[in-house]
Amino acid sequence: MRVGIYPGSFDPVTLGHLDVILRSSKLVDTLIIGVLNNSAKKPLFTADERVDLIERVTRGIHNIRIESFDGLLVDFAKRQNAAIIVRGLRAVTDFEYELQLAQTNHKLCPQIDTVFLTTSVEYSYLSSSVVREIAGYGGDIKKFVPECIVQAVYDKYNVIRSV
Amino acid sequence: MRVGIYPGSFDPVTLGHLDVILRSSKLVDTLIIGVLNNSAKKPLFTADERVDLIERVTRGIHNIRIESFDGLLVDFAKRQNAAIIVRGLRAVTDFEYELQLAQTNHKLCPQIDTVFLTTSVEYSYLSSSVVREIAGYGGDIKKFVPECIVQAVYDKYNVIRSV
Amino acid sequence: MRVGIYPGSFDPVTLGHLDVILRSSKLVDTLIIGVLNNSAKKPLFTADERVDLIERVTRGIHNIRIESFDGLLVDFAKRQNAAIIVRGLRAVTDFEYELQLAQTNHKLCPQIDTVFLTTSVEYSYLSSSVVREIAGYGGDIKKFVPECIVQAVYDKYNVIRSV
Amino acid sequence: MRVGIYPGSFDPVTLGHLDVILRSSKLVDTLIIGVLNNSAKKPLFTADERVDLIERVTRGIHNIRIESFDGLLVDFAKRQNAAIIVRGLRAVTDFEYELQLAQTNHKLCPQIDTVFLTTSVEYSYLSSSVVREIAGYGGDIKKFVPECIVQAVYDKYNVIRSV
Amino acid sequence: MRVGIYPGSFDPVTLGHLDVILRSSKLVDTLIIGVLNNSAKKPLFTADERVDLIERVTRGIHNIRIESFDGLLVDFAKRQNAAIIVRGLRAVTDFEYELQLAQTNHKLCPQIDTVFLTTSVEYSYLSSSVVREIAGYGGDIKKFVPECIVQAVYDKYNVIRSV
Amino acid sequence: MRVGIYPGSFDPVTLGHLDVILRSSKLVDTLIIGVLNNSAKKPLFTADERVDLIERVTRGIHNIRIESFDGLLVDFAKRQNAAIIVRGLRAVTDFEYELQLAQTNHKLCPQIDTVFLTTSVEYSYLSSSVVREIAGYGGDIKKFVPECIVQAVYDKYNVIRSV
Repeated sequence: MRVGIYPGSFDPVTLGHLDVILRSSKLVDTLIIGVLNNSAKKPLFTADERVDLIERVTRGIHNIRIESFDGLLVDFAKRQNAAIIVRGLRAVTDFEYELQLAQTNHKLCPQIDTVFLTTSVEYSYLSSSVVREIAGYGGDIKKFVPECIVQAVYDKYNVIRSV
Repeated sequence: MRVGIYPGSFDPVTLGHLDVILRSSKLVDTLIIGVLNNSAKKPLFTADERVDLIERVTRGIHNIRIESFDGLLVDFAKRQNAAIIVRGLRAVTDFEYELQLAQTNHKLCPQIDTVFLTTSVEYSYLSSSVVREIAGYGGDIKKFVPECIVQAVYDKYNVIRSV
Repeated sequence: MRVGIYPGSFDPVTLGHLDVILRSSKLVDTLIIGVLNNSAKKPLFTADERVDLIERVTRGIHNIRIESFDGLLVDFAKRQNAAIIVRGLRAVTDFEYELQLAQTNHKLCPQIDTVFLTTSVEYSYLSSSVVREIAGYGGDIKKFVPECIVQAVYDKYNVIRSV
Repeated sequence: MRVGIYPGSFDPVTLGHLDVILRSSKLVDTLIIGVLNNSAKKPLFTADERVDLIERVTRGIHNIRIESFDGLLVDFAKRQNAAIIVRGLRAVTDFEYELQLAQTNHKLCPQIDTVFLTTSVEYSYLSSSVVREIAGYGGDIKKFVPECIVQAVYDKYNVIRSV
Repeated sequence: MRVGIYPGSFDPVTLGHLDVILRSSKLVDTLIIGVLNNSAKKPLFTADERVDLIERVTRGIHNIRIESFDGLLVDFAKRQNAAIIVRGLRAVTDFEYELQLAQTNHKLCPQIDTVFLTTSVEYSYLSSSVVREIAGYGGDIKKFVPECIVQAVYDKYNVIRSV
Repeated sequence: MRVGIYPGSFDPVTLGHLDVILRSSKLVDTLIIGVLNNSAKKPLFTADERVDLIERVTRGIHNIRIESFDGLLVDFAKRQNAAIIVRGLRAVTDFEYELQLAQTNHKLCPQIDTVFLTTSVEYSYLSSSVVREIAGYGGDIKKFVPECIVQAVYDKYNVIRSV
């Protein structure tokens, strides 16, 4: 059975993430969405909230599981018996960083391989930090995140906006 | 009437910025230089000081106006009736970030378009952060910023140097 | 009066080109579409045919003119009294080549400046050579070129396909 | 059943290709190695010879099949009932070209997705054209191609060298 | 006599740094390894500790000297009578930053030139920050730093691990 | 004694090449300028003419020697007892190609190392092919090549121009 991991911060999950989740769920038997719980960073949403938001937007995809983790990605992958790490690529600067990460993880654990999906063009400009910046100023984020979590993002900033 | 906005931090304005201001002032009827007043960052110069420094170095260009703003760039552009955002490009890493920004702004407000000027070669290595670092160590910044603001930059660092 | 030139091979014109034409026609008073007639290359369409195809797809844009040219772009621009060259940017490799071109043209003729528009995301993968390759194998090009020229491209390859 | 295609010219197959073949054969149930038979190019080896060389170096991998094809990749993938295209990424310039290709193929056939593997570091500098150039001058290619095909490459150039 | 400087943070020195030190020590008569003592950053190791770690791993190279410095690199180079700055290049994003730095330093001090070595492929993914992250989670860093400093890095994180 | 090789086509030598020659002649005891005589390409100038043009523009630099060569660069370097290959870097796309070349040459001959100089900003847009294109259309190339060879380039194109 092929188990893959799609790791990320998902702070919050965007339409670009959802696109990668949908497509990579077809590549493996089980896809584990690994929500990084990095204590050194101050995320907008807690790890539990981020797991919850992803659950809301992935209903109907049956071969996925959502877990938060901290520590090294390869250790998490080993605990999950996953041999495949899935990453989305948007741009060249992404690519170099991801390449470095993939090669480091390969050195740490040669039996785990990283595969990349390129983000669909309509989401190639999208990132969680862009969503946070726009929402923080009360801008319209409906084109950027799944509809069912729009209000949750505004709530974090106390933005009153008729969604 | 074509109104364009050239936004930035300008902390402080450099010879590279001045080059883009001069060239883009010829592309539009009115050029608004938008000085970003981002409360989350700690700039060297206050927004008012940065507006003042740009005023000093742009005397003689008659179709420009200098304004500070906070919030989303597209909201500022709409308030100013500007349909064109002007950005300078120096390098490939600039390009990817700027591309993402332009596409996000286009999603938020389709009637506003972004045009890019490439920085003249002699300023392609130049950035405000480089100027701040050199000035902070008492290095020579006369080749990097307009002459009439050199002393103002040294003053911020209490650098005594015969300009 | 601001006159701009949008130069290219347009062999054939794509939806990406059309997007740049529409947007740049708003930046200038007159936009001249310069069709490069490079005798060293063997285009699919002659320069006259390419001018004709662009005319078909730009009906309704009133401030444009379509001209073929050979020789140096800056010489063509000077003959047309154009001070602005417009270029579309899709990707990083585009960017470096275009940067080099803009800087060379600036050296040859400092009063002419180059401005860049980034191609809308939905056309960021598109090029005339991709269109030619797909059409040559009888593939579907309706998502890539304006509808009214689809048949003309197939005809060049003697492809029989119900459009 | 997941069927993947790894397309390429393989003129000749290198150690970098072999690395991608080994790793991607684990991602799918059947991996089809698609040898591009492009009549417009003049390869060093004929398509049949290239299929034969790949067969020699992939003995022992049981879930692969080697086929030559011409025409559009998506048409070949559809004929083979493959939903996954596998590509190796070495460098940034690769990445941009591959991104464009993946997005074009996705437009032509949305049910086919492209996944990328990054080439292992030790082969990141390697390409068939580099191998051809070195072999043509009688240089040592043993570090670049599988041992069992070294002589076949020299033979094409009538290079006499004790392998 | 040719004196070169190889500057960096070396927090800690990696196998990639050691590769550049070995190779650049052959290019000059004396190589000074300049350990940047930037008070604004909080390094894992103090400047003195970093000098000490480099001394441990470079025993046997006779034409090098290790010094810590703060302030501008060109000022340090002038004090050391060095006319050559050596930098390692791993990736494209490195390259742009380094290009900018080299051009700024050339403006500040035209008689000092920067030469670049590309990191050997097997270390192209390696950086001190990757080492720190892996060590902080108790991961295996023996493939990333010279053996004689592995324990010193774990000690900083109070990681107990049988090396 | 340190011997370096600066290889290239030099068809024709530009001000950018001359800048690299001047700077790299200070890095080594003897600099050999290697003029690539590639029979597969059709250069504008023969190898002998290119050697002659470089001789004209490098009078006064005493530690250089100009040689044409064909075959593999590492074989040429070995015949010349050179341990250093010098290359100029202008842009990111240059960088990736050069990185690949350096790594291949290192595999073929580990005792030869490649060092890179970045082209001075004022020549960063410059290439021999740009010079040839401009000269072919009778454009002004005085800002691109050393003055004493301007006429020789025009002569190749039968361009009559008062230099």
